[in-house]
Amino acid sequence: MGVVVIGIAGGSASGKTTVAKKILAALIGEPIALLDQDSYYQDLGHLSLEERKAFNFDHPDAFDTELMLRHVRDLRAGRAVDKPIYSFKEYTRLAGNRRVEPGRVVIVEGIMVLALEELRRALDIKIYASADDDIRFIRRLTRDVKDRGRSIDAVVEQYLSTVRPMHLQFVEPSKRYADVIIPSAGPNDVAIGVVVAAIRQQLRESA
Amino acid sequence: MGVVVIGIAGGSASGKTTVAKKILAALIGEPIALLDQDSYYQDLGHLSLEERKAFNFDHPDAFDTELMLRHVRDLRAGRAVDKPIYSFKEYTRLAGNRRVEPGRVVIVEGIMVLALEELRRALDIKIYASADDDIRFIRRLTRDVKDRGRSIDAVVEQYLSTVRPMHLQFVEPSKRYADVIIPSAGPNDVAIGVVVAAIRQQLRESA
Repeated sequence: MGVVVIGIAGGSASGKTTVAKKILAALIGEPIALLDQDSYYQDLGHLSLEERKAFNFDHPDAFDTELMLRHVRDLRAGRAVDKPIYSFKEYTRLAGNRRVEPGRVVIVEGIMVLALEELRRALDIKIYASADDDIRFIRRLTRDVKDRGRSIDAVVEQYLSTVRPMHLQFVEPSKRYADVIIPSAGPNDVAIGVVVAAIRQQLRESA
Repeated sequence: MGVVVIGIAGGSASGKTTVAKKILAALIGEPIALLDQDSYYQDLGHLSLEERKAFNFDHPDAFDTELMLRHVRDLRAGRAVDKPIYSFKEYTRLAGNRRVEPGRVVIVEGIMVLALEELRRALDIKIYASADDDIRFIRRLTRDVKDRGRSIDAVVEQYLSTVRPMHLQFVEPSKRYADVIIPSAGPNDVAIGVVVAAIRQQLRESA
């Protein structure tokens, strides 16, 4: 039985995860494996907390892409993988892993999923979740302050020094590689329906 | 039986027609009605050729949207329509019409299809065919000189005076209303497959 690997890229706080969740919800009953690139940040355990805070988390090199790519290939081959666990509070990988069982659908979600060539080549359907930059900043601010215990100043500083320049350099240009660009900030039921119909068809064809 | 109305917008020479043709080819055997907005330019028969040449063909008012909208509604209701015939050489509507038979799929294609609110509301799936501006200009130049007997100067003059400003004012912003944005200048088999799968599913659901 064939496996369909869907990539969902997009800027920070663009709504990639929401798009992934909507696809998951629409495909209920179908075994699905979800790999989020956030879990694949490099292990920074050897650095001090100050050094970790100063790390550029928005550069392609911030991610352990070799590991993520191996996991995508394992899942495609029907093998479970042990996904690392990353803490946004501690700015590093935590001990232990999270088991991800294989599924006929694999969703690979993250800011650099289309920007990194090797990862991009491993995808069957490439989606870019697109939202306006100001809306993305507002969401990021709200999330980082409320859920990740950051200060407004720290969020603004990180946004201007790395998030925004790296977005312009790596993420936004990777939109060019998308098969379809879908709006991710507002109502997008038709877009989700279009993508889900395509996944279902590929599942039927490779059954 | 339900009818699925697909809108395909995009800038001048973005490859909208090619996208429409690829969808038609993929749905072979399915009755499809195609309405191209180019056929719905206002009748300029009352103007001199010079006046017609100076007309702003890239403004929403250049189109007989009332007629096009009526035709979309007729086709949705299963009634054939008589589409006007427009000549790019004469810069006006020609005598006679072209009969378009109803189909379970109606494709509505043109630069203003998403920009005009009434037309937009008549669509079930809204697609924006996206291509880089320079590539679009090159295609337009080639087409207008070779197929429509225009001079390079005339093409450049029209592009800078109306095509480009109207694109920036009306067409490009209408991308915001698209359910999915698909690349139209390069290879886009996956994108076409995604759209076709969605159309097929809607046909099954409304059968």
